Amino acid sequence: MPPVDFSPLENAEFPAFEPGSVWLVGAGPGAPGLLTLLGYSALSRADVVVYDGLVNEAVLNWVRDGAVLEHAGKRGGRPSPHQADITLRLIALAREGKRVLRLKGGDPFVFGRGGEECQALAEAGVPFRIVPGISAGIGGLAYAGIPTTHRLTNHSVMFLTGHDSSGQVPSAVNWPQVATAAPVLVIYMALRKLPEIAATLLANGRAAEDLVAILSNASLPQQSVMETTLGALTDPEVSQDLPTPAIVVVGEVVRFRGEIEWYGPALRSSAMG
Amino acid sequence: MPPVDFSPLENAEFPAFEPGSVWLVGAGPGAPGLLTLLGYSALSRADVVVYDGLVNEAVLNWVRDGAVLEHAGKRGGRPSPHQADITLRLIALAREGKRVLRLKGGDPFVFGRGGEECQALAEAGVPFRIVPGISAGIGGLAYAGIPTTHRLTNHSVMFLTGHDSSGQVPSAVNWPQVATAAPVLVIYMALRKLPEIAATLLANGRAAEDLVAILSNASLPQQSVMETTLGALTDPEVSQDLPTPAIVVVGEVVRFRGEIEWYGPALRSSAMG
Repeated sequence: MPPVDFSPLENAEFPAFEPGSVWLVGAGPGAPGLLTLLGYSALSRADVVVYDGLVNEAVLNWVRDGAVLEHAGKRGGRPSPHQADITLRLIALAREGKRVLRLKGGDPFVFGRGGEECQALAEAGVPFRIVPGISAGIGGLAYAGIPTTHRLTNHSVMFLTGHDSSGQVPSAVNWPQVATAAPVLVIYMALRKLPEIAATLLANGRAAEDLVAILSNASLPQQSVMETTLGALTDPEVSQDLPTPAIVVVGEVVRFRGEIEWYGPALRSSAMG
Repeated sequence: MPPVDFSPLENAEFPAFEPGSVWLVGAGPGAPGLLTLLGYSALSRADVVVYDGLVNEAVLNWVRDGAVLEHAGKRGGRPSPHQADITLRLIALAREGKRVLRLKGGDPFVFGRGGEECQALAEAGVPFRIVPGISAGIGGLAYAGIPTTHRLTNHSVMFLTGHDSSGQVPSAVNWPQVATAAPVLVIYMALRKLPEIAATLLANGRAAEDLVAILSNASLPQQSVMETTLGALTDPEVSQDLPTPAIVVVGEVVRFRGEIEWYGPALRSSAMG
């Protein structure tokens, strides 16, 4: 197998990463190879990288010599910085004239607070750009052999988050309709509240026999997938010991996994995904 | 601005692209820089690339010398090949021992028939892998300054397609609930049926004053965004001359565009996005 040839990219016109600006980059669900070329270009040029806990450390090795790495997520039991503090830090670094890379897991605009960070940067007059990332609700499912949509099962799909900023199951979600509006539900950050979410979905008309897959560490070598039913999930013991981060998918698309699961043991030795 | 340095990737362990296998790769919404590193590695190694009409031709320039490009989408008024014919072609090429890259716009598993292609490959015993791509409903919106989710507006988002395989507005969609279940709707391939979709959403309780953005050619230099309301869209004249491909977003998230639109004229000169 010849190595991958990057020479065609050497003369590609990547956008300028201007000093004093911030790039919000989504790193994808975990596999380093799911970073975009634009995201890579930002790592290669940034002066400072402010990264979240869910970013794969292998990706951080691609920063240029001399770049500074700053962690901005929960780690080792220490409390996570407040969102306002992270935003102020980005603004301060940009005002020092740094090229600031804000690196987040998944996509910055899917349950990721990227919108709030952009608003603060705009208000402060700091130039920024967004580099989208692969969201776990799409790319993570793919690594489990589950298509987010399939013509035979769903022309719609609902993405929702399992907790709001208070840490509770979001009360702003329209549960009576969310439960049954789409054949497929993809629930982010659901694991801790899963028995309560399952009970709420059942109480609002979703079927107990609906198939569920719980994906932990999607797209990484240690990926694990548990298949169950919605009814079973009201028992906390079913999900309480599953590894995080996890994403939950409810619906008939889970069944396709039996046919098209492809990310087997032999493929997991590749560091890029 | 120093060039982007790809040398750290030269020793990265990309997964082997085995002869006789098929990789289904999502190219993202349009900007070449939104291709993933895994997607790039596949272009660099493939023997044959079977690509859809929505794939940016700049990306196709990155194939290795001697690779064969096969177009599998609508172009120049010629009819598009049937899905079954594309699938048979992928299987035939793999059985010739080729490394077959199936390159699709967006993500293969989001209204992209990737699931069907995987099922056929699995049934034929052809090894395959999926390389997710940035979906327009997330990454395209980001280029218009619209977050798919924002803590202040939505803890859920509904993705749906504007037509089914018969070309009609999908009857399988649960319109009475879809209309109002989530604060944000993202509708793929909606343009041709938009007056009918808007009327259906209104008839099922969605508010006429709801904000709408219609994104054409998202993430490309010719990107255009029209902001309107759901009520206005029942008039076919409002949307009939808009360029395709287009994606439609309904909901309060459209308002953030006023604050965080970032992809201005100066940035559009970069070929990578």
